[in-house]
Amino acid sequence: MNYQMIRFLLSRVLQITGLLMILPLIVAFIYGEWHCATVFSAIVAGCLILGSIGAHFKPANHAIYAREGFVATALTWILMSMVGALPFVFTGVTDSYVDALFETISGLTTTGSTILSDVSMFYSVQFWRCFTHWIGGMGVLVFILAIMPMAGGYSMHLMRAESPGPSVGKFVPKVRETAKILYLIYIGITVLQIICLLFTGLNLYESLTTTFATVGTGGFGLNNAGIGAFGTSSQIVITVFMIICGINFSVYYYLITKRPLQALRSDEVKLYLALMFGSATLIAVLIYNQGTTATPFESFHHSLFTVASVMTTTGFSTLDFNEWPQLAKTLLACLMLTGACAGSTGGGFKLSRFLILLRATKNELIYIVHPNSVKKVYMDGDPIDSTVVKSVSAYLSMYVVIFIISTLIIAFDEFDFETNFTAVAATLNNIGPGLSMVGPTGNFGSFSVLSKFVLMFDMLAGRLELLPILILMSPRTWAKR
Amino acid sequence: MNYQMIRFLLSRVLQITGLLMILPLIVAFIYGEWHCATVFSAIVAGCLILGSIGAHFKPANHAIYAREGFVATALTWILMSMVGALPFVFTGVTDSYVDALFETISGLTTTGSTILSDVSMFYSVQFWRCFTHWIGGMGVLVFILAIMPMAGGYSMHLMRAESPGPSVGKFVPKVRETAKILYLIYIGITVLQIICLLFTGLNLYESLTTTFATVGTGGFGLNNAGIGAFGTSSQIVITVFMIICGINFSVYYYLITKRPLQALRSDEVKLYLALMFGSATLIAVLIYNQGTTATPFESFHHSLFTVASVMTTTGFSTLDFNEWPQLAKTLLACLMLTGACAGSTGGGFKLSRFLILLRATKNELIYIVHPNSVKKVYMDGDPIDSTVVKSVSAYLSMYVVIFIISTLIIAFDEFDFETNFTAVAATLNNIGPGLSMVGPTGNFGSFSVLSKFVLMFDMLAGRLELLPILILMSPRTWAKR
Repeated sequence: MNYQMIRFLLSRVLQITGLLMILPLIVAFIYGEWHCATVFSAIVAGCLILGSIGAHFKPANHAIYAREGFVATALTWILMSMVGALPFVFTGVTDSYVDALFETISGLTTTGSTILSDVSMFYSVQFWRCFTHWIGGMGVLVFILAIMPMAGGYSMHLMRAESPGPSVGKFVPKVRETAKILYLIYIGITVLQIICLLFTGLNLYESLTTTFATVGTGGFGLNNAGIGAFGTSSQIVITVFMIICGINFSVYYYLITKRPLQALRSDEVKLYLALMFGSATLIAVLIYNQGTTATPFESFHHSLFTVASVMTTTGFSTLDFNEWPQLAKTLLACLMLTGACAGSTGGGFKLSRFLILLRATKNELIYIVHPNSVKKVYMDGDPIDSTVVKSVSAYLSMYVVIFIISTLIIAFDEFDFETNFTAVAATLNNIGPGLSMVGPTGNFGSFSVLSKFVLMFDMLAGRLELLPILILMSPRTWAKR
Repeated sequence: MNYQMIRFLLSRVLQITGLLMILPLIVAFIYGEWHCATVFSAIVAGCLILGSIGAHFKPANHAIYAREGFVATALTWILMSMVGALPFVFTGVTDSYVDALFETISGLTTTGSTILSDVSMFYSVQFWRCFTHWIGGMGVLVFILAIMPMAGGYSMHLMRAESPGPSVGKFVPKVRETAKILYLIYIGITVLQIICLLFTGLNLYESLTTTFATVGTGGFGLNNAGIGAFGTSSQIVITVFMIICGINFSVYYYLITKRPLQALRSDEVKLYLALMFGSATLIAVLIYNQGTTATPFESFHHSLFTVASVMTTTGFSTLDFNEWPQLAKTLLACLMLTGACAGSTGGGFKLSRFLILLRATKNELIYIVHPNSVKKVYMDGDPIDSTVVKSVSAYLSMYVVIFIISTLIIAFDEFDFETNFTAVAATLNNIGPGLSMVGPTGNFGSFSVLSKFVLMFDMLAGRLELLPILILMSPRTWAKR
């Protein structure tokens, strides 16, 4: 294990965290929140000083292999969460550091689950809370890769560990270039949504925070009423940008690099849009028949908003879908699990994994009947490597095992099955709210400290796609050889 | 497709069904149920006549390949269910043929879910109902293989399609011999339990029907009170035999063929017993603390009974575990999903599949960190073929997909999520009762006809381990080439 290199990277992460916290500091000044300004100043200073000291001594050896890549990624997210939790405690939003850590991890992993029963707080702290969604949406290490030169081809191991989805294969050769372009796309989408929201009548502060929570597909709201408090036009803008951010960013990459045909070939995006609009139409019919909404337009508006929010695992809501027909609720639950596209800011199992598994399973069925047939699994028209299929299968197994163990541990709290099951589903898929006690009108505050740590683990495991966190915790990783 | 051979096999199945129904016919005579005796006589005669006509013309070509094997297996079970449902309708237990079919499929697949709100009925019909568990426990085709000579090595395709678990590899060479031995073991266990139950004070009728429901791991009870109406000693006998029937029958095969070391090597059985007694101990402590049971012995007794019933997917109950602590309930829910050993009469996902997936996933994790490591997955000390791992992964995917689609379709009935989710879980795993409306005190009667067909499909798919039913329904199977 190259400890020096990990120390160096973590120091860089501290520096970045300090720099990012200058934004809420500015907000504190603007709104005259002097106590908050002091808190943010102190943390910014601490991060920059400690980070600079740690980064001052360059590591002798820049080699990062898969193991270091995963470990560094996991530690990066844990460190950022630990630092990011400090403002919540020092400004008095919560007394408990564990709760603050939960809230920060929920923010950075773009989950949007909250332990707060009342989410109104200082402007600057709320800004920081929503801003964590934006930071976590694209990833911290991708950001570091984008702005800092790194020697050798080692950066691919970091990128691979942090990027969502089964493979970033095609991007690997020019990691730094790619990271830059991805961040530019991300910033472009962000700016565009801020402008659109300003046009719909939101003020700058509302536009900024809502945009952070949307493009990061996080789901933290400014107040308990959430997005329902905004007008229809704002809601439409948010719907459109949720859908945009659930699409594999490689599509935008191809569009920018003038390869529109490549962009159109994505099987995953086709499935994503088909599921999105198919489900939205079906649910619109169901809730219109139920009489929840008065006009067909309203039905489709709320239905599409909800489906987009659920598929991208953002977790915003305009209506309480707990009241909707069972078929609509079941469909939404399924879409929560499948999630959005790989390589987007959305969470969940990812549609491409789902597609790969379905196609591999179909091949397997054909193989059983006709043992002489050997077929490859195709994605986007090209055959994919059998190691990808194997790793996706392993992913499903790990996912199920983590799900079962988490549900068992939080059952110690003696809450009902629906609460426990959906709390794990909501955190592991980075969705946000679950059902029952952790539903859209509830929160995660009543869980025990043990359960909160389990759910924090699930959020991190979900955002980092299981591997970095599992590898960090494996004794084999730390064994001397 | 060798249609002649399938016609021939199905005719044999009709004959067997007719012969098996002679038993409830005798019961009808003993209890003087003359109307039932007429019904059973008519069906027996019909089966034997139609079966003999169909089996009279020998097929020109005896070849059965994988495709025919799966299709014949699926059709066998459907045909037996359709015939087996007739007594329920003609004796007036239910007016609806769909309900009768549901009850019979539930019996044959050893599920034990019922559509009846009151399960008291004629002795002969009740006998037939419990006897279907026994028939389905070991499988109909295995029975045919055991008693009828079949040309060529084709019988392995039938055995493979009907036997539970990922592989019957080692048994393949002498299929007929193996089938005979398996059936002898099965009959031996059955006779032993009947004798034990008689000693605990049950009458012959109770002993017979309860034994059928136990060794088939089915779970149909004689009355609504179920096993709770029996004394503790009878309950202990049932516990022991449930545990015995959840063990891979190859263990008994090895013991009989004097290879005890081979029997002791089974990783699956070790895991099965460890999970069984570990969970039972934990749950005993939990319910003792809760005050559900008065003495430590009583706690362990009811706990072990319930764990055995759940792991083997029998579905018997002595206490309403809905009232138990959440941790106990969650643990039971997990054990329902993992199920018993492959090659036993129990249902569920099967522990060996679980073990294979865990080990393959561990290898995959190691591979990701150390790409040069290539390790095989070991079971019982021997490496297993990578095609087995692939097929188990595919099994998990199919399982999840069937689960999701079933839950979506039955959501049309607008029952609550817990009912829908556990109804699918209980039928697909051949458990029997679920929770909420389909809990131990409820039944499946209120579902729509569409939902009942979905759940029947799930029961058959679960018992036949997905493949035969999926292959039967695949258009590719019927495509001319």
